[in-house]
Amino acid sequence: MKKLFAEFFGTFWLVFGGCGSAIFASQIAPAEGGQVGILLVGVALAFGLTVLTMAYAVGHISGGHFNPAVTLGLMSGGRHSAKEALPYIVSQCIGAIAAAAALYFINGGTGTGPGAFATNFYDHAVYFGKSYSMGAAFLVEFLLTMFFLIIIMGTTDKMANGKFAGIAIGLALTLIHLISIPLTNTSVNPARSLSQAIFVGGEAIMQLWLFWVAPILGAIVGGLIYKNLLQSPEKEALDS
Amino acid sequence: MKKLFAEFFGTFWLVFGGCGSAIFASQIAPAEGGQVGILLVGVALAFGLTVLTMAYAVGHISGGHFNPAVTLGLMSGGRHSAKEALPYIVSQCIGAIAAAAALYFINGGTGTGPGAFATNFYDHAVYFGKSYSMGAAFLVEFLLTMFFLIIIMGTTDKMANGKFAGIAIGLALTLIHLISIPLTNTSVNPARSLSQAIFVGGEAIMQLWLFWVAPILGAIVGGLIYKNLLQSPEKEALDS
Amino acid sequence: MKKLFAEFFGTFWLVFGGCGSAIFASQIAPAEGGQVGILLVGVALAFGLTVLTMAYAVGHISGGHFNPAVTLGLMSGGRHSAKEALPYIVSQCIGAIAAAAALYFINGGTGTGPGAFATNFYDHAVYFGKSYSMGAAFLVEFLLTMFFLIIIMGTTDKMANGKFAGIAIGLALTLIHLISIPLTNTSVNPARSLSQAIFVGGEAIMQLWLFWVAPILGAIVGGLIYKNLLQSPEKEALDS
Amino acid sequence: MKKLFAEFFGTFWLVFGGCGSAIFASQIAPAEGGQVGILLVGVALAFGLTVLTMAYAVGHISGGHFNPAVTLGLMSGGRHSAKEALPYIVSQCIGAIAAAAALYFINGGTGTGPGAFATNFYDHAVYFGKSYSMGAAFLVEFLLTMFFLIIIMGTTDKMANGKFAGIAIGLALTLIHLISIPLTNTSVNPARSLSQAIFVGGEAIMQLWLFWVAPILGAIVGGLIYKNLLQSPEKEALDS
Repeated sequence: MKKLFAEFFGTFWLVFGGCGSAIFASQIAPAEGGQVGILLVGVALAFGLTVLTMAYAVGHISGGHFNPAVTLGLMSGGRHSAKEALPYIVSQCIGAIAAAAALYFINGGTGTGPGAFATNFYDHAVYFGKSYSMGAAFLVEFLLTMFFLIIIMGTTDKMANGKFAGIAIGLALTLIHLISIPLTNTSVNPARSLSQAIFVGGEAIMQLWLFWVAPILGAIVGGLIYKNLLQSPEKEALDS
Repeated sequence: MKKLFAEFFGTFWLVFGGCGSAIFASQIAPAEGGQVGILLVGVALAFGLTVLTMAYAVGHISGGHFNPAVTLGLMSGGRHSAKEALPYIVSQCIGAIAAAAALYFINGGTGTGPGAFATNFYDHAVYFGKSYSMGAAFLVEFLLTMFFLIIIMGTTDKMANGKFAGIAIGLALTLIHLISIPLTNTSVNPARSLSQAIFVGGEAIMQLWLFWVAPILGAIVGGLIYKNLLQSPEKEALDS
Repeated sequence: MKKLFAEFFGTFWLVFGGCGSAIFASQIAPAEGGQVGILLVGVALAFGLTVLTMAYAVGHISGGHFNPAVTLGLMSGGRHSAKEALPYIVSQCIGAIAAAAALYFINGGTGTGPGAFATNFYDHAVYFGKSYSMGAAFLVEFLLTMFFLIIIMGTTDKMANGKFAGIAIGLALTLIHLISIPLTNTSVNPARSLSQAIFVGGEAIMQLWLFWVAPILGAIVGGLIYKNLLQSPEKEALDS
Repeated sequence: MKKLFAEFFGTFWLVFGGCGSAIFASQIAPAEGGQVGILLVGVALAFGLTVLTMAYAVGHISGGHFNPAVTLGLMSGGRHSAKEALPYIVSQCIGAIAAAAALYFINGGTGTGPGAFATNFYDHAVYFGKSYSMGAAFLVEFLLTMFFLIIIMGTTDKMANGKFAGIAIGLALTLIHLISIPLTNTSVNPARSLSQAIFVGGEAIMQLWLFWVAPILGAIVGGLIYKNLLQSPEKEALDS
């Protein structure tokens, strides 16, 4: 039960901090010109720091997934039990939606259009007039989640320098956002995508499937790659 | 006594570095256009680094609170003695006010209006023409301080990877600022709010109550959440 | 074989994350004015985080070079075997080119002109109208790679605080980019330069020689400096 | 002798990376508008990362001062021998000047006016039309160097979590720059100030005295504060 609370609070923090910084602080254009907001670099930093901070705060309780794709990827990589997967994912989704509700109240609504309220999207030109196709969006979400899992599996490997895993995993999420906010608003996390889409509705719901399928497939493949190509056999022996 | 000096210097550094970077460096618009200042992302980084640096420098002396809400939250979470709370808070407030006096001298005054001299505010449109209500401001300050305490309690838990607590707690403060500077100028710290308000006076003083009540309530609830929902029972046994 | 997979995935990540963030996210100018992209500071952060994250994820497998100059510099510094050098470099180049192919697909082409698609360059004014000569570019790439190797050799020295090497080396790459993106688009890594140039062709190929020669020479000199001027003799004894 | 090489290379890196990023990359205004450079936040990051990276690379050799004020402050705090102070300071100044020479060659000169070529200044409006007096500049440089020394003394105290000192000290230098670049271009390091002033000459030389006197006085006071108010007596016993 403590594990499920940890996943609830961790995913709440991820959505409140990551999506919240995007909604409230990314673009602040004072009347006298220029931009003084945190920009996309600040949003990327915020998402990463939600995971970095909660990994060190409650990682010792639940493992610190905060993301259904991570839970399923660790299962495919042989690091997490199948029977805990569903309760973890339910806790993550409830935490994400609760955070979105708080953001909705503070912001006084969601705004409209692609990317409103930190929703994910494809095939829309939200940033600087350039639109990326469904295929490009799928590839980006797949590859980024695949590498996210390789990094998670690698940094928590018994042969690795495991105390630094929270830093490396958190900053990997920052890096993922540095690359892909202009492409899809960056998901790699189905719970985060769900939480925003249900408050915005309409097209955001219709595009939601991609932000479940691509990250989960990428995570499963990433878990398998690390287990089969990178993990040392002695290591597997030690695990069992 | 060394503990009180540590809290004095730590809180001085928090206000001098955090509020100072906001006052001197956040917006630098050269005549030829654009913005080259540190922007809100730099201010957020500065606040976090004040805590990160002092946590490793004097955390072994006083625990490194630098914030009355943190002291009271740790008390509610069973990690800090009640009889030390008042001297800690007095030291923190004196340190914060001394730093504000130095900033006042260097800046040659405070400026006027909501948000002047790094004061906190609600119900004012200081950044990009959007105003957030007292209720929204209260919720934001409450939630952010509540999570700040969950992170502090979690990262310093005996089961956790405690040597990284200074990094996680400092960067949690950065994250908190990434979300909420446009909403309230971010308090989560009553001593920091007090130090700015007393130099500006007027409405800043009239709104100060919120930046004492909401962070302290949030911190107390955060301490209780971690203690009752997340801390393992064996852990409590080890503590006593 | 696991070592070569680790170098492949690590160098893929370096190019996909570093060059990808430069291509997709560095400049985002909304119609209403200002810049909200990750700017050159975000690109610098992205390059460094590719190495920081993969160093902790697969560094225990291959040593985490992801860069032919690093492999050769460690060889000159007496830290890496000569017979593994060629397979390492081939894996790095294949990984880099595979990442560039993914970027090419997502971006729908490369664009044209100096600096297109994250290519390196000299003697061109790509950023703010200032052009740097071949000699200046050579010196910059030489010196930055030389110091990169001194840092790599030093942080992984047996006398050093080696668990932090991944943080220091990753952030050294960030620092290198903070200095030199406007000068050469920053190489210090022949595989990264190759991967971009072959998709762009033309002049990018003709200038590619400098981004192999200068980093490799710098790395070899950096390895020798650390070994001969900084490494303690007792250390060398312990190694053999 | 290895110690002096370590100080030479470390201080070269500090000036080449910190001042270099300021000269080459801080302001990049493309013709289409906006600013895409690393801004003052990137310069602050660069200065901090020079120290963070070299502290982990050569800190085990020389202690990693790279700054005459630090050497003298550690002497006043009882952590460094007086007879090594002069050779350290000479090595630091030679390293800083050598780096400035490389920057001079790459940049093709220094530019002119207050703040040119990363020189420090007071009583000039270099950033956003605001000028700070000599008294304000002195107080800022004094206080920031004083706190820098408190952080250095504290994080390397035997009671502290010393392996993180390189992170805390490096990021303290980042924080110091986040506050004070608009005030004085930030010195806190006489060798860094000297290296820029001698290439620019004129008024930069005339104002140089402040950037030796204020940091050195601040460092000496900071060393004494930590030793007398914060260091535990048992600690002093252990040291002797």
